[in-house]
Amino acid sequence: MKPQLNIITLGVTSLQRSLQFYSDGLGWRPSSASQGDIVFFKLGTVVLALYPREKLAEDARVSPFGQGFSGFTLAYNTTSKEEVDEILKLAESVGATIAKQAENVFWGGYSGYFTDPDGYLWEVAWNPFFELSEDGSLVLPSPESL
Amino acid sequence: MKPQLNIITLGVTSLQRSLQFYSDGLGWRPSSASQGDIVFFKLGTVVLALYPREKLAEDARVSPFGQGFSGFTLAYNTTSKEEVDEILKLAESVGATIAKQAENVFWGGYSGYFTDPDGYLWEVAWNPFFELSEDGSLVLPSPESL
Repeated sequence: MKPQLNIITLGVTSLQRSLQFYSDGLGWRPSSASQGDIVFFKLGTVVLALYPREKLAEDARVSPFGQGFSGFTLAYNTTSKEEVDEILKLAESVGATIAKQAENVFWGGYSGYFTDPDGYLWEVAWNPFFELSEDGSLVLPSPESL
Repeated sequence: MKPQLNIITLGVTSLQRSLQFYSDGLGWRPSSASQGDIVFFKLGTVVLALYPREKLAEDARVSPFGQGFSGFTLAYNTTSKEEVDEILKLAESVGATIAKQAENVFWGGYSGYFTDPDGYLWEVAWNPFFELSEDGSLVLPSPESL
């Protein structure tokens, strides 16, 4: 199985509210492949999709019931500490909740978290040990045995 | 805010068990940037991280409590129906649970789902309307107004 991940789909309570947040708020423009009740955003080479939560659960044949911590986080890496503050401020200004104000963290970086309308967590992080390439993707050392 | 997503971190109950599943099982090799209790996999230009669930919640300043549907899915796109079946079979052989056997789906593709050791859902999908580029990423139409 190739090391590959194509789409992250967030199950949302209100597609309109989420679209407003990500598109009108954060400024991400939906791909024209979006149709019906699925919205796609191209984020570099990965795709973020928004789809009604009930339908997503139904598609995967699982119960839609769920509560509390969803167990995962999404991270947006920046090239400076200042950019972390700017993005958290932007997110807050368009309705995000700040779960954690940015601070210097134990691993040597600077990061904070906001949540989207469904409570999904976005970390905004400056990591001085990770290089960001021109296209905005992280440059990580090649795989090797642990 | 640029259309960018760098890392998806899964909060896992047992790092060893998840590492065994993704690395020994699916064959993905951790980046040498992995250290302590965080493991990074380069999946194209996006990074999948595994980190203990309690610590992930602590890092985001949220309660670690959560149950039921985590609300999101990850998708792996293939170039054929046969590849969907092969990957589901591989995943099952290394301990995944098949949440949904592959079938023809209403949008014209063919897909199934497996869950990882923590129950996170992976869709394996063949989508005849989406082109996969050489590097394994989806080619989506450019953004335009909805």
